[in-house]
Amino acid sequence: MKEDIQARIGQLRDAMRADGVDAVIIPQTDPHQGEYLADHWQVRRWLSGFTGSAGDLVVLADEAFIWADSRYWLQAAQQLDGTGISVMEDGKPETPAIVDYLCAKLPSGSTVGIDGMLFNVSATRDMQQAFEAKGISLKVDFNPIDTLWLDRPAIPANDVFVHPVEFSGEDAVSKIGRVMDEVAKRGADAIFISDLAEIAWTLNIRSSDVECNPVATSFLYLGPQGATLFIDQRKINADVEAYLSARNISTRPYGDILSFLSGLPENEHVLISSGQSAGALLPVLGARAIVGTSAVAMLKAVKNETQLKGVRDAMLRDGVAMVRSLMEIEATMAAGEHLTEIGVGDILLRNRRQGERFFDLSFETIAGFGPHGAIVHYSATPESDATLTPDNLLLIDSGANYIDGTTDITRTITLGNPTNAQRHDFTLVMKGHIALATAIFPVGTRGAQLDVLARINLWKEGLSYLHGTGHGVGHFLNVHEGPQSIRLNDTLAPMTPGMITSNEPGLYREGEYGIRCENLVLTTDAFTTDFGHFLKFETLTLCPFDIRLFDTDIMTDEEIRWVNDYHAMVCERLLPLLDAPAQEWLIEKTRPISK
Amino acid sequence: MKEDIQARIGQLRDAMRADGVDAVIIPQTDPHQGEYLADHWQVRRWLSGFTGSAGDLVVLADEAFIWADSRYWLQAAQQLDGTGISVMEDGKPETPAIVDYLCAKLPSGSTVGIDGMLFNVSATRDMQQAFEAKGISLKVDFNPIDTLWLDRPAIPANDVFVHPVEFSGEDAVSKIGRVMDEVAKRGADAIFISDLAEIAWTLNIRSSDVECNPVATSFLYLGPQGATLFIDQRKINADVEAYLSARNISTRPYGDILSFLSGLPENEHVLISSGQSAGALLPVLGARAIVGTSAVAMLKAVKNETQLKGVRDAMLRDGVAMVRSLMEIEATMAAGEHLTEIGVGDILLRNRRQGERFFDLSFETIAGFGPHGAIVHYSATPESDATLTPDNLLLIDSGANYIDGTTDITRTITLGNPTNAQRHDFTLVMKGHIALATAIFPVGTRGAQLDVLARINLWKEGLSYLHGTGHGVGHFLNVHEGPQSIRLNDTLAPMTPGMITSNEPGLYREGEYGIRCENLVLTTDAFTTDFGHFLKFETLTLCPFDIRLFDTDIMTDEEIRWVNDYHAMVCERLLPLLDAPAQEWLIEKTRPISK
Repeated sequence: MKEDIQARIGQLRDAMRADGVDAVIIPQTDPHQGEYLADHWQVRRWLSGFTGSAGDLVVLADEAFIWADSRYWLQAAQQLDGTGISVMEDGKPETPAIVDYLCAKLPSGSTVGIDGMLFNVSATRDMQQAFEAKGISLKVDFNPIDTLWLDRPAIPANDVFVHPVEFSGEDAVSKIGRVMDEVAKRGADAIFISDLAEIAWTLNIRSSDVECNPVATSFLYLGPQGATLFIDQRKINADVEAYLSARNISTRPYGDILSFLSGLPENEHVLISSGQSAGALLPVLGARAIVGTSAVAMLKAVKNETQLKGVRDAMLRDGVAMVRSLMEIEATMAAGEHLTEIGVGDILLRNRRQGERFFDLSFETIAGFGPHGAIVHYSATPESDATLTPDNLLLIDSGANYIDGTTDITRTITLGNPTNAQRHDFTLVMKGHIALATAIFPVGTRGAQLDVLARINLWKEGLSYLHGTGHGVGHFLNVHEGPQSIRLNDTLAPMTPGMITSNEPGLYREGEYGIRCENLVLTTDAFTTDFGHFLKFETLTLCPFDIRLFDTDIMTDEEIRWVNDYHAMVCERLLPLLDAPAQEWLIEKTRPISK
Repeated sequence: MKEDIQARIGQLRDAMRADGVDAVIIPQTDPHQGEYLADHWQVRRWLSGFTGSAGDLVVLADEAFIWADSRYWLQAAQQLDGTGISVMEDGKPETPAIVDYLCAKLPSGSTVGIDGMLFNVSATRDMQQAFEAKGISLKVDFNPIDTLWLDRPAIPANDVFVHPVEFSGEDAVSKIGRVMDEVAKRGADAIFISDLAEIAWTLNIRSSDVECNPVATSFLYLGPQGATLFIDQRKINADVEAYLSARNISTRPYGDILSFLSGLPENEHVLISSGQSAGALLPVLGARAIVGTSAVAMLKAVKNETQLKGVRDAMLRDGVAMVRSLMEIEATMAAGEHLTEIGVGDILLRNRRQGERFFDLSFETIAGFGPHGAIVHYSATPESDATLTPDNLLLIDSGANYIDGTTDITRTITLGNPTNAQRHDFTLVMKGHIALATAIFPVGTRGAQLDVLARINLWKEGLSYLHGTGHGVGHFLNVHEGPQSIRLNDTLAPMTPGMITSNEPGLYREGEYGIRCENLVLTTDAFTTDFGHFLKFETLTLCPFDIRLFDTDIMTDEEIRWVNDYHAMVCERLLPLLDAPAQEWLIEKTRPISK
């Protein structure tokens, strides 16, 4: 394997020399700026052998690096050992950014090569500017991979299917109309969409091209030339073809986009997104390009009544699956049977599959026992798979895509007698969760403004967590979506009624255990006063928190009341759907807590 | 007066016609982008008769407007009645921005005139871009005011004096060195500073050119051509001349700046600030300009140990003045004597003047009784001056510039028996004040992230305030300074040890009363844990809050403890400085509160 990697890097260097390229940057993404990649776009993995979900590869004539973030410092070092590729420990103050490193390393007159389809407009422009200042050229069409990677997997070609209006709540024709209203507001005539979730939402189509993301690999043009979906036409069966035709949506081959865009009339202004459209579109569109933020993200994030009814229904099924799974984990442990982290994932999947309208998981289940719970993006492998024992905490972060809604829930449970320190930590995290769940805020408030509510109780004790507190959640779509988020860095999108967002503070004690408590919340109207209109969050997720982990001594009466009220709601909604033993279990697990 | 205004606008229109200008924008600022203006730059006031502290004048051939924010809608309408100038109620959704209005109103081929010294680089660029897209030209050197305003007041020429290093804690030579380090980091060779407070800080000089801001009207160049202060040389006496010469700082006439800048070598890169430098510098500097954020603001905001000792000392004097004033107000009311809002300001000034090292007020005192307290930027005039009566709240926002530090404090007191509603409102505001005062947060945290801590208790009851929660405070300098702030909008400057910031949440019941509770806080180290280094706030201001206004039923034990601890500190520090009656008064006013 090490030799394969060395050979592949050698061939890449041959291609670089042949094209006069002194350095190449291979990012971990696809032409849709996707978070999860189909095998076809796992170029960095194929070239380097490094399997992390993030981290770019940089190859120069005599050195090569993976820029890995702290999650992957160790794994990258292990996987790259002997390949001639070194690890750049990204996030350390002394580690330069890739562009800064290349600017310092390469002499003036050098050339950096990239595949312009794999960098968004902003990143491309920033790179161009930085390199230009140092006399370095950026070659944006350097893509020798197809000639090097002879058995490269094909672009995914799974069947497309229609997401019925019974669940989406709005026909594609209406959505296209609303998108075009937004396009007109930006002063454009047309829009070219690269984001797969945005295309899926706009056209009410789904597929299974990306693991856990029910999207179809495609691009979408909407404008004076008519709605055109660029897609591998083998993915479109007769029904879907009829569905699209009835809405005046034509299809063209996936590979046609650049020739199509270059043929557009000179005076047609096409909106592309600075964060989601590839930089390679810029030279093709020229003066026709209007670069802005996504015109679809805000429309997609605000769910309609049909979607919300679907999500509420899906939460009942997901809650039942969670209750059954937690019960089963407890029973297995009580019986002294062998259970591992992967086994926990299996239990969850089996129970979720029994739910009506289940389609797939919405992301790979994270079941982290003890120290594994402290690894934020842990995912058990056969090598790491820990056996559960009664002496520590188990963190379970999981979710599903149902045809009528997407779920994402994290529960942290004790498998035996929790320590006082565990209860204290858990309660601090829950205090943050409750502060956010009960927040009321004026229209226009952004998630970044609310974030500290989830953190301040931890900070006061010198504790913190480094991930965001909340992300937007799609509707039978990607479990991570924008534009809103609740995190330290501002995303400028106001929390708007109809948005679904996660509420997931955490705390991670390296080598000991991890705690995260996550529900999904809906932004909704609170009230109007002389001071304006106010919004609040409605918690959608239905599953008890582990009452053995609360330290009520450090909770306010209001916080205790919130837990008890939440548990009463969970019981009210789930009990009718459970059999007698599960009912008994749930009633016991939701008995009121008190000082 | 109305006729004067009509005549002036008529003469301005003559000048516009003569220069081919179709619309002119007269902003309320000066070439230093100042917040407070000397009479010389009160052009908008002279032209329109409108005296508000904000609001731009726009004159077209057949119409004229003041864009006034909500504070000034009523006042502007009254003052402009009969002048032919209308009010644009800025802040209403239907009111266009000035540039949008002109873009919509003026035909392609029109010309808008401005004095390019009165708009910063960002604003100038934004205007240029917007007008260009509509085929409108921007003439940046349209300034006929000197020829129209025959008795225009001179540019201020008060004496400059040196701020001794005994108080500033760092010689100007050292500060210049640190500024130039920052300039080099930005890739520039030189810096041209327009901000008067930045010049005063860098050179350790002060003057009294701007009301309540102890600054000298000037520009400062630092770079290969040597340090050069552009200033009316009548302001520089022999001592100051010697002081500057000893530090290799030369002086040139204030009006020389554009010719000086245009004569710089072609390859000298000059850093100017997008927010504080005038757009008029751009064409003069051409390719030499490097536009960035201020290179001085962060250095100036972080106070050294000498400055902090000075501020702590000044707080003792200011606290004594506040205690004496509050005592005097109470005694005057108790004696049934007549006391008005202006009278309150007189009492405060008299008591502050007795303090050692008193220089001037740091801003015009706000004393707002009852409904006047609800007007956020209220300042009593002989016409508005309300007589205090025992049935309402009095809001007093005041501060001073001492040679060793700047203060800014707001107290809200009851003059009789407070209502339950007043106590409830006051306590909600104090809960926010305390939440911020007790916050602990990781290094890197920005004020915008903390802001919600001061607001959430108000929001939960449908209440809010629209001003920022905190602003930076200078050292014997402007009471408002950046780069940090605590407000809804992010200013991207992290709260850094040594920064002094106000903590001033409020609540304003229109027509009833206003509440604001303000102390200054110092950002300081808290502790280091496995999770990183944490910071906290140390409250600097020393003056009791009105304990009659606390509703302890809605306070937590921690909040009550904070009030009692704060009052104990106030007593400990101020009692030794007070005479017996004042000691007795303070002890009574700081007795512990409890449930």
